[in-house]
Amino acid sequence: MTKTLIQHADVVTLDAAGTILRDAEVAIDGERIVAVGRAPAGFQPDEALDATNHVLMPGFVNAHTHAPMTFERGWAEDLPLDRWFNERVWVVESQLTDEDVYWGALLAVAEMIRGGTVAFADHYFYMDRVADAVETSGLRALLAWCVFGEENNIGTDLQGTVDFVQRWQGAADGRIRTVLGPHSPYMCEPRFLARTAAVAARIGVGIHIHLAESQEQVDNSLKLHDRSPVEVLETNGVFDVPTIAAHCISINEIDQEILARHEVTVVQCPNCHMKLGMGVTPVPALQAKGVNVALGTDGTASSNDLNMLKEARLAALIQKLHHRDPEVMPGDLPLRMATQNGARALGWPDSGTITPGALADLILLDCDQPHWRPRHDLVANLLHSAQAGDVSHTMVAGRWLMKDRRLLTLDVERILWEAEKRALALVGGELSVVRMYAA
Amino acid sequence: MTKTLIQHADVVTLDAAGTILRDAEVAIDGERIVAVGRAPAGFQPDEALDATNHVLMPGFVNAHTHAPMTFERGWAEDLPLDRWFNERVWVVESQLTDEDVYWGALLAVAEMIRGGTVAFADHYFYMDRVADAVETSGLRALLAWCVFGEENNIGTDLQGTVDFVQRWQGAADGRIRTVLGPHSPYMCEPRFLARTAAVAARIGVGIHIHLAESQEQVDNSLKLHDRSPVEVLETNGVFDVPTIAAHCISINEIDQEILARHEVTVVQCPNCHMKLGMGVTPVPALQAKGVNVALGTDGTASSNDLNMLKEARLAALIQKLHHRDPEVMPGDLPLRMATQNGARALGWPDSGTITPGALADLILLDCDQPHWRPRHDLVANLLHSAQAGDVSHTMVAGRWLMKDRRLLTLDVERILWEAEKRALALVGGELSVVRMYAA
Repeated sequence: MTKTLIQHADVVTLDAAGTILRDAEVAIDGERIVAVGRAPAGFQPDEALDATNHVLMPGFVNAHTHAPMTFERGWAEDLPLDRWFNERVWVVESQLTDEDVYWGALLAVAEMIRGGTVAFADHYFYMDRVADAVETSGLRALLAWCVFGEENNIGTDLQGTVDFVQRWQGAADGRIRTVLGPHSPYMCEPRFLARTAAVAARIGVGIHIHLAESQEQVDNSLKLHDRSPVEVLETNGVFDVPTIAAHCISINEIDQEILARHEVTVVQCPNCHMKLGMGVTPVPALQAKGVNVALGTDGTASSNDLNMLKEARLAALIQKLHHRDPEVMPGDLPLRMATQNGARALGWPDSGTITPGALADLILLDCDQPHWRPRHDLVANLLHSAQAGDVSHTMVAGRWLMKDRRLLTLDVERILWEAEKRALALVGGELSVVRMYAA
Repeated sequence: MTKTLIQHADVVTLDAAGTILRDAEVAIDGERIVAVGRAPAGFQPDEALDATNHVLMPGFVNAHTHAPMTFERGWAEDLPLDRWFNERVWVVESQLTDEDVYWGALLAVAEMIRGGTVAFADHYFYMDRVADAVETSGLRALLAWCVFGEENNIGTDLQGTVDFVQRWQGAADGRIRTVLGPHSPYMCEPRFLARTAAVAARIGVGIHIHLAESQEQVDNSLKLHDRSPVEVLETNGVFDVPTIAAHCISINEIDQEILARHEVTVVQCPNCHMKLGMGVTPVPALQAKGVNVALGTDGTASSNDLNMLKEARLAALIQKLHHRDPEVMPGDLPLRMATQNGARALGWPDSGTITPGALADLILLDCDQPHWRPRHDLVANLLHSAQAGDVSHTMVAGRWLMKDRRLLTLDVERILWEAEKRALALVGGELSVVRMYAA
């Protein structure tokens, strides 16, 4: 078991009291933090790291994404949702191979580690290859193979996703967890949702699903089923297992109470909700009812990056704007949503704080830069001034995945080359108009 | 005159046609670009720079800020506007010295150059010291000394600001321009506004002012003057000189037509408007009427950084959300607002494109990173994936101010130390609670 001692760090612990420590030590033994403040007497580290001029905090948890969609970054801009899907996203997804998924996922995990993400919840196709990328990268992930119903699936069917779940549950030294991934109540028939929920309960896993992304979906659901999308999921037993529900924009008071009663985690994706003009998840109301709200980027076809620091910032900004109230979403609340709330949803409730006994899933950020000064309030600096590129070190389960911006588990040069080559081939694309100016 | 040749760059020109060039050369002679595509025959550069894996684009123009407010970064969080000002901002500003302003401005220009800003419009106090910082830094700036009226000013009065304007107009090889800076129609009496406008017209300069930040300001203006804030400025002759009006959130159809008729530049500050819960500038409506809309960060007491790439991104996101329409603010429009529209407002209409004859105010961004791949659409990558920290090189008037992230005109180590020391002294502050955990 490797012992690491980090010294001279300014630590944003995100513990219950919001404690911040200056010039502190954090001692790590194996996969866990064993001391915060000063190392235990007699602690003999294998490695001591001087973190002078660095802030140490829990790593980010991206609670809803589709990692291999890096292929479509910048490929579906400024379009309404139906054209975004039919003319762009689906054109690529319908021809994906499992090898494409592997390289798209590798590009995604490289970006995530560089931006300080330590865990993510993924919902896509050919998920064995995403699992391969997670295993190689050293990250944690909760993986779901997305299915649409009894037919028209990509690469498998419900039974196939059950096999996937059982094949990978607890793999990679426990860093991989698996759940079922029915797409949404607007794509899946109620009978299929009920069958999926029953299977999930039988094999003892949760569900990751899209929910209530627009008022149009709600209207259609009321027309077809006499129930809101949230009510459809409740009626069909989905919420009887631990559920992660992405988006939840168009939900009324009754829906919110159902989500609270069943301890559903709601994942807000602020960048995606803004860019696609979708609306605003009622986060303050949900939190007032005790709902666990986490943050996600969604796929890079809609949000263009996997930058959780930006999502945390937008989580504050979008609510302050929507409510015309600068006091909404104060202090470190957005950072908690971006870390420990996600960790809890993914099944690692002992990740997401810098406290003795917590999993050593943590990051360092270089604050020896103009945009970090002065340091009146490290939480404000992190949330409203820091950039993903300020993350210098990323550790998961006590193991460094990045040191001084150098990725330790991935061959980034090969990934950039291979992933871009495949992405361009998928869209049959060249890169832009070329024109010469007269000199 | 120095000759520079940049080679192998992917160039987002932001010319009228939106031309993008791959693997291109940009030739610079003195302060101007002389060729784009291939260098002129016989061009003998003093320096050739290999920009492989870099994107070249016009530098950013921050069209409304208060640079020395870096002192208050993170010092006024999550507060309603009145408490934000009275309990926080004013407490610091009322005790500022001109030396504080100098170091605060140096911290700001260091951050700006590192984020790819080439010019800014500043509105603050003790502006001779901001001018000193601009001169040292190599940036361009349009400077205004803010006054509130006949009394209660900071450091000078209207005549003093006229002296300032004349002392610095065209200084630093033409990189400094000056205008008058009455605070706003809600702080300044109409008679004072009329007097300021007359003086501005007489000495041949423009005006930089805050305008229509809230419905409350409009209501008060109607009550006091029977006119909206926009109508008050028009009536008192302010718009008879070139005017930069920051914010313009609460403006109706008639106001918008007045702004268009007088060719006022409106500066939207999306981060500030979201963080303080202020609302949304009607940018699409203004642009439809032909108004020049630029972008600004406002001061770091409200937006926490001077990151124009983030403001461009938010300029797209805030309008798409507000109109629930992903087709609003498409393509490179936000980048144009963040560059050439600001340059035009500041008085450098030949800055803000990469075209022959334009001023060589440009930046390079390092795109050899996971979040930049694939490159389906360089504009989308710039706008929605890039970070300020990706800016590797910044050039103003043909002179490098930063190369490979190294600042060439500023002693950044000294600035960080001196500015933070002064900022902490101003708030009488210590840096956070310290608590030890038992090991």
